[in-house]
Amino acid sequence: MDEREEKIQTVSNAFDRDLNRLKEMHPSDIAEELEDRELSEIRQVLREFGDEQVADILTELPQEIQTDLLENMRLDRVSEIIPEMYSDDAADALGQVSPERLQDIMDQLPDEHVEGITTLLEYPEDTAGGIMRSEVNAVLTSMTLSEAREAVRREEDQDQHNALYIYVIDENGRLQGVLKLRDLLFRDLRLKVSEVMISEVRSITVNADQEEIANIFQKYNYLALPVVDDFGKLVGLVTSDDVIDVIQEEATEDMQRMVGLSGEEMVTTPWRRSVKNRLPWLLVNLGTAFLAAWVVSMFEDTLLKYAMLAAFLPIVGGMGGNAGAQTLTIVVRSLALGEIEDNEWRRVLVKEIIIGVVAGMVIGLTVGLISWLWQGSWVLGAVVSLAMLLNMVAAALSGVLVPIGLRAVKVDPALASSIMVTTVTDVVGFFLFLSLASLALNFLQL
Amino acid sequence: MDEREEKIQTVSNAFDRDLNRLKEMHPSDIAEELEDRELSEIRQVLREFGDEQVADILTELPQEIQTDLLENMRLDRVSEIIPEMYSDDAADALGQVSPERLQDIMDQLPDEHVEGITTLLEYPEDTAGGIMRSEVNAVLTSMTLSEAREAVRREEDQDQHNALYIYVIDENGRLQGVLKLRDLLFRDLRLKVSEVMISEVRSITVNADQEEIANIFQKYNYLALPVVDDFGKLVGLVTSDDVIDVIQEEATEDMQRMVGLSGEEMVTTPWRRSVKNRLPWLLVNLGTAFLAAWVVSMFEDTLLKYAMLAAFLPIVGGMGGNAGAQTLTIVVRSLALGEIEDNEWRRVLVKEIIIGVVAGMVIGLTVGLISWLWQGSWVLGAVVSLAMLLNMVAAALSGVLVPIGLRAVKVDPALASSIMVTTVTDVVGFFLFLSLASLALNFLQL
Repeated sequence: MDEREEKIQTVSNAFDRDLNRLKEMHPSDIAEELEDRELSEIRQVLREFGDEQVADILTELPQEIQTDLLENMRLDRVSEIIPEMYSDDAADALGQVSPERLQDIMDQLPDEHVEGITTLLEYPEDTAGGIMRSEVNAVLTSMTLSEAREAVRREEDQDQHNALYIYVIDENGRLQGVLKLRDLLFRDLRLKVSEVMISEVRSITVNADQEEIANIFQKYNYLALPVVDDFGKLVGLVTSDDVIDVIQEEATEDMQRMVGLSGEEMVTTPWRRSVKNRLPWLLVNLGTAFLAAWVVSMFEDTLLKYAMLAAFLPIVGGMGGNAGAQTLTIVVRSLALGEIEDNEWRRVLVKEIIIGVVAGMVIGLTVGLISWLWQGSWVLGAVVSLAMLLNMVAAALSGVLVPIGLRAVKVDPALASSIMVTTVTDVVGFFLFLSLASLALNFLQL
Repeated sequence: MDEREEKIQTVSNAFDRDLNRLKEMHPSDIAEELEDRELSEIRQVLREFGDEQVADILTELPQEIQTDLLENMRLDRVSEIIPEMYSDDAADALGQVSPERLQDIMDQLPDEHVEGITTLLEYPEDTAGGIMRSEVNAVLTSMTLSEAREAVRREEDQDQHNALYIYVIDENGRLQGVLKLRDLLFRDLRLKVSEVMISEVRSITVNADQEEIANIFQKYNYLALPVVDDFGKLVGLVTSDDVIDVIQEEATEDMQRMVGLSGEEMVTTPWRRSVKNRLPWLLVNLGTAFLAAWVVSMFEDTLLKYAMLAAFLPIVGGMGGNAGAQTLTIVVRSLALGEIEDNEWRRVLVKEIIIGVVAGMVIGLTVGLISWLWQGSWVLGAVVSLAMLLNMVAAALSGVLVPIGLRAVKVDPALASSIMVTTVTDVVGFFLFLSLASLALNFLQL
């Protein structure tokens, strides 16, 4: 064996070892391991797995790798993998593929898959239609339990998610009720489905917003809910694991948007994309920072006389910003969780103003006292004190009104809300403090 | 009928109408409606419902109302309601009751409930033990499917959650595998459970942290996982609806803690409690604000000559604070979602520094240019520019190192992290800007 052959041998041994290790793992873990590798290497590894396994792994890979793979794998392989995926996962994966490639793939797929996926591709991503799967067990009201049992047995897909409930539809496909597997196990099989089923079954419509669905699951502790179209026809199933993804996604989005991020940035996002995401809001923030600077600049004369006033700007502004951030966080989160009804925001506003006044008095007095001791001027102390109290009230007002206002104009209450609140507390705080100080100090000639 | 009788009649009619309306509703909705009412009224309403219904409603009421009710309802009623609750809900409700009252209640309960609840009360709230229920269907490996079927039929509790899987244990109660209800429905009933069961079953240990459990559910899309003790004995079940509550709770907690809130504040929290929650961190923040003020005060002489420098403080500090908040949000959220492995934080740090440098150059140049145009001094422009760039890097450093450092010393990475990062960006920003400005302006005598 010459040197070159030996080298190839070593490489292929390493590859085999790696492959054997991967084959022992859960698809989610394989995906996690693969996502850091080169695309060519991922393709090479996936070639060694069966269609069903590749379908499971693909489902768990990040969107951009899914897209790359579906664009670059052999077309006949793709057309064998897609039918092994859940329709919702397949639709998600195909959603980013180029239109020409999508057409090519669809042409190769069996008809029943094309229809399911095409329908799903049409629903907006953040609605029930966008997160549901279209595979759902259903039997007819007119069947006997024995016939229903046979229908369930025939269902090829034996997955846990489908086995949860058996939905009951009429001849027109409209949702009529739900059967439990237990009923098939223990009830008299000669009974009609319509006699045994629970006919009060909650469903969600295909256009329902995903955040709303998450709140329903959380409130009523469902594990799955059927999805119906506008005519009451059963079209899909949302399970609580879909909802878990939605909830994490929405929480991440809210947290990020509050500080001017895209809502979709991750630690793994390449820095170029991160810079592109972050710069716009930083530039908007720059505008508001200059607004605050301009307010300060109006008091140049006062500052030339009493330069120490500058030292108090970060105290008045910063504390206001912090109090505002506290109020804002409570309000944004409560809005997301559906805890504030349309007519309740006034009560929240009143409460936050009370907190602002009380905390403002405590903080204001403390600040005033320390300032007096530090600078030896009770007038300065009084001015800082009053400016602080008023700015805390401004913080409370903006912390409630900014997100409530954004929602009223149908914008995400989280969107850049923290930048807006900070602008208010900076501008109001600086203006109040410096104008009170100018008045007091000029009058009293200290 | 005299006037007084008439009045009583009217009141009781209104009460009956209200009651009839409530009786039509889902327990979660009844709870939502009741939680705004007086405690005496809630008690009066609950008296009209059966034990099982009260158990369901009680489960959905806020903790403080649960505690009040359990303290004040008739003891014999309590002892009939508790057994109707899931063991985990019962333990949660009883967890806040006074020790004497708890003893009284326990004395009245049937033995099998006492044991289950006592065990659950001992687990920390945020572990698998704290969120699991101890009711879980189990059959023995040695049974035939036919015997297993009978065992399942005998289980009193026909709830959806238990019907998901049937867990298989050995004579010592150790988890050995899992059966699907389908197996009981379609397989030959003479087979042994051990022949049909899936023996590779994932479980979580009773001490596992709830955040970790949430990440497992999210990653692998489970609907339920069995909980085992240190000896592998099956002790409970965590379902994905428990996990949904955990995820919402953890997200709320992280969002709140970042801005110095308790993690448990709600819009409905009375203002007195809110003030008590918020004041401590506001006072800590006051300390850090005075630190920043002290930094500014060191440059009093410079500021007396060039008062306009004060106007640039909010720009340098504010922009740094914002960039820091962006980095911090990404890192805190990724830590919570388990996306940053122990050895990966260096990569994150490098990436954030690159972003800080690039965004810092863009923002720095923009700020410098505007400042030059505004104040007509290129030196000032250059100083602002450089201070901004360096402060953006400081923001990146602190945005990564503060949460990573907190986690390293086993403190929640979210805890007051935003206060710490803002302190760094204020102090560093002010010091850099004012010292650079002092140097440049004094040297150049502008």
